Amino acid sequence: MSLLVTGTIGIDTVESPYGKADDVLGGSAAYFAFAASLLSPVRLVGVVGDDFPQAFLDLFEGRPIDTTGLEIRAGSKTFRWGGKYLDDINERETLFTDLNVISEAAPKIPEALRDSDYVFLANTHPAIQLEFIGQLSRSKLLVCDTMNLWIDTARDDLLKVLSAVHGVVLNDGEARMLTGENNLVTAGRAILKLGPRFAVIKKGEHGAMLVTPDDIFVLPAYPSENVKDPTGAGDSFAGGMMAYLAAIGRMDGAALKGAIARGTAVASITIEAFSLDSLAAADAQQVEARLGELKAMVAFD
Amino acid sequence: MSLLVTGTIGIDTVESPYGKADDVLGGSAAYFAFAASLLSPVRLVGVVGDDFPQAFLDLFEGRPIDTTGLEIRAGSKTFRWGGKYLDDINERETLFTDLNVISEAAPKIPEALRDSDYVFLANTHPAIQLEFIGQLSRSKLLVCDTMNLWIDTARDDLLKVLSAVHGVVLNDGEARMLTGENNLVTAGRAILKLGPRFAVIKKGEHGAMLVTPDDIFVLPAYPSENVKDPTGAGDSFAGGMMAYLAAIGRMDGAALKGAIARGTAVASITIEAFSLDSLAAADAQQVEARLGELKAMVAFD
Repeated sequence: MSLLVTGTIGIDTVESPYGKADDVLGGSAAYFAFAASLLSPVRLVGVVGDDFPQAFLDLFEGRPIDTTGLEIRAGSKTFRWGGKYLDDINERETLFTDLNVISEAAPKIPEALRDSDYVFLANTHPAIQLEFIGQLSRSKLLVCDTMNLWIDTARDDLLKVLSAVHGVVLNDGEARMLTGENNLVTAGRAILKLGPRFAVIKKGEHGAMLVTPDDIFVLPAYPSENVKDPTGAGDSFAGGMMAYLAAIGRMDGAALKGAIARGTAVASITIEAFSLDSLAAADAQQVEARLGELKAMVAFD
Repeated sequence: MSLLVTGTIGIDTVESPYGKADDVLGGSAAYFAFAASLLSPVRLVGVVGDDFPQAFLDLFEGRPIDTTGLEIRAGSKTFRWGGKYLDDINERETLFTDLNVISEAAPKIPEALRDSDYVFLANTHPAIQLEFIGQLSRSKLLVCDTMNLWIDTARDDLLKVLSAVHGVVLNDGEARMLTGENNLVTAGRAILKLGPRFAVIKKGEHGAMLVTPDDIFVLPAYPSENVKDPTGAGDSFAGGMMAYLAAIGRMDGAALKGAIARGTAVASITIEAFSLDSLAAADAQQVEARLGELKAMVAFD
């Protein structure tokens, strides 16, 4: 199945107790695409400014990432984000957010990509997610992410998105905020009442939970001792998850569980280096090896 | 293998968003013993005052709990604790702690119980845990719990305990505080350098992790939608874990993983009612059923 992602492509500056990376490739769609490309071809839709370095464009070359949907907008500046991870690497401070081109008109999905089967709408204003949905002609699996800002300020639009998608991926705090339910299983079930057939609740270092109408699945994160930069973990998780579904062309409960495991494995690779460095150096075999370790780590008799 | 637990037996008053329970049976050794008794006979060592209700003593009757080590001290008052769980039921405030008899001389392990094979030293001052260790004649598996207070105020005694035990069960915050390591795997490995052959790190609603010299095991908590009173979850977990090990007479890696799964199953039963109510109503079959659900919930291909 063809797979498409819409989201941000940006320039990040990241500090953690393990080092600093200045002006590196980042953004939700970049992490998603690199992660997904380990398991499936992926089409990237986003917009950058004409200051976007050629060296970053070159990073997409040689991978099964279709960048025909990456608009380079003349006269605009690329999205920039800076963050600092604390001694407890699960906590971070945002140092700056320069929306730049992200605050202008959204990119369009090129005609040739509108037939995409599986689509992931990474976090952005839900009104823009609705625009993207309107441009798609035959999506079989539509999954969105969101964030607390939109739950708070654009709830009506977000509810329209949720009624239109098949699945949602969001973090535990967002699930609680969206539904007013503290218990995550109850929150997951409440999300299903808003439209999606499944909800994937990310719990950061604690893993992820899948809630469907008739099933609950829980998986811990891979317990890495070598976390250097958690940026993009959630987007890499979504990329690994969606790419596995696209690769096998299924979206049933068993497929979703396998997909969450692949997403967990890929995310664990992402966070072991700054920016996209470890993802860029990874291959399908490394994902498979990490998956095997993960399976062994939760096995008991 | 014979199993013995040392710890508190008290009278609790607990509030949660789901109700209130006044003057009910509680304490680490009570939860441990009720939980363990679902899978193995267990010997209870602790001390209460002469105000301890006969009705509570009656609750131990008819179960494989040996109460010959339960001292009822004339002229003393039983330990009392009061707590209130918040809307987010994973957070609680302590309303009061009346140490009473717990602040007096520790109970002694009766001669007849000193040959116990498997022993769990629930949380108390490490100097008292050392006294207990000195009274044991042939323990094959010694496991202790501890708390932040002792890490802070009685570190030297605690280090002596850790150098004498085979395993330790503690929560994530305590593991970080004890070792100064934020990463839980690194913290677990640092604990092993202090003496224990294994460390079980409890993460509350997020499950538990086992660290041994050559293995890592992670298991999510059972995702209950019906959490009424989390009191005693950790002690029930330890009870289920130790009782499984005692029942099969093994302490290798595979046994520890199975034991953590049983502990997780038993703890999930504990928190679905106030005090020991659901534990008291449970049986081995219910633990087995919960274990099967837990296994299905983490299974993927």
